[in-house]
Amino acid sequence: MTHNKQEKERIILGIDPGTLIMGYGLLKITENKPQLLVMGVLDLKKYDDPYLKLQKIFNRTLALIDEYHPDELAIETPFFGKNVQSMLKLGRAQGVAISAALHRNLPITEYAPLKIKMSITGNGNASKEQVAEMLRRYLKIPQENMLPQLDATDGLAAAVCHFFQTNSFQQTKKFTGWKDFVSKNENRINIK
Amino acid sequence: MTHNKQEKERIILGIDPGTLIMGYGLLKITENKPQLLVMGVLDLKKYDDPYLKLQKIFNRTLALIDEYHPDELAIETPFFGKNVQSMLKLGRAQGVAISAALHRNLPITEYAPLKIKMSITGNGNASKEQVAEMLRRYLKIPQENMLPQLDATDGLAAAVCHFFQTNSFQQTKKFTGWKDFVSKNENRINIK
Repeated sequence: MTHNKQEKERIILGIDPGTLIMGYGLLKITENKPQLLVMGVLDLKKYDDPYLKLQKIFNRTLALIDEYHPDELAIETPFFGKNVQSMLKLGRAQGVAISAALHRNLPITEYAPLKIKMSITGNGNASKEQVAEMLRRYLKIPQENMLPQLDATDGLAAAVCHFFQTNSFQQTKKFTGWKDFVSKNENRINIK
Repeated sequence: MTHNKQEKERIILGIDPGTLIMGYGLLKITENKPQLLVMGVLDLKKYDDPYLKLQKIFNRTLALIDEYHPDELAIETPFFGKNVQSMLKLGRAQGVAISAALHRNLPITEYAPLKIKMSITGNGNASKEQVAEMLRRYLKIPQENMLPQLDATDGLAAAVCHFFQTNSFQQTKKFTGWKDFVSKNENRINIK
């Protein structure tokens, strides 16, 4: 379901839909340079009604699509869980976010949490803090713009992971993650 | 999320969303008399792409809502399953069908399969054939109009179960299922 646009600009919506919180981030790629458009969280803990939670996920996802017109959805989807009850709930949250993308005919790509962490930090067991810090440096996000909720960077991480997986830099170079990107582009990166 | 309309007519959409097949039925209730509007199945086995399956569920549910303008959605939702993988998939199918209802602001009520079978036949372990036969008699559906796919009656059964659960016959009588309905309305029922 992935596609490589031939145009010089593409926008990726990254989402991490959960039953307690949904993190999202939008990445704009211009001539292979990624730039953060927006990231945020939808706090679902304050709603008791399970349908209201699902409706909020659907509406927010649809609103993000209609406002930023992303070309693709990248979604963090754990495939394993503790028990069937929690997986049913998680599946519903995912299904609702996926519905909004399907409703607007967006291609969807799923990534397991380990794959995303591996892609961003080179370590599949990286902490949320490590992922957030790597994203902050990579996208040159001012410290004051980082949200206190690390779940927001989970959504953004899905978008950046998708960029790494689908980008063919200058149509010749390919990289499989941040470490690979760094090794092949040391002159382009300025880590403070 | 249930509601009792004070008007003399209400339409209930019943759905049994699965990953292989979706059954649906629409029930029109006029002055407490239920009548079958339509029932059918959406065969998802022929699609390999999991997103296409989900999109078909979403689109069909939305199309049924927009064509028949139901007041409520009744949905058959198993709460337990064999493993986390199948529950995640089932949760997604449910989430997608629920999304379509939420998108049109329909109230949603969920029923476990055992509850539906109990409500229709008086036996929580009734076979699909028994449920179908009871629905055929109760709604006086001509034999030639019964679909070969029993999954269609699963969707319809959810709608009839919801009718039994929410109907307050002539604002005084209440019944908890088919057996109860029969015992309280013997003069109204003509089983052939």
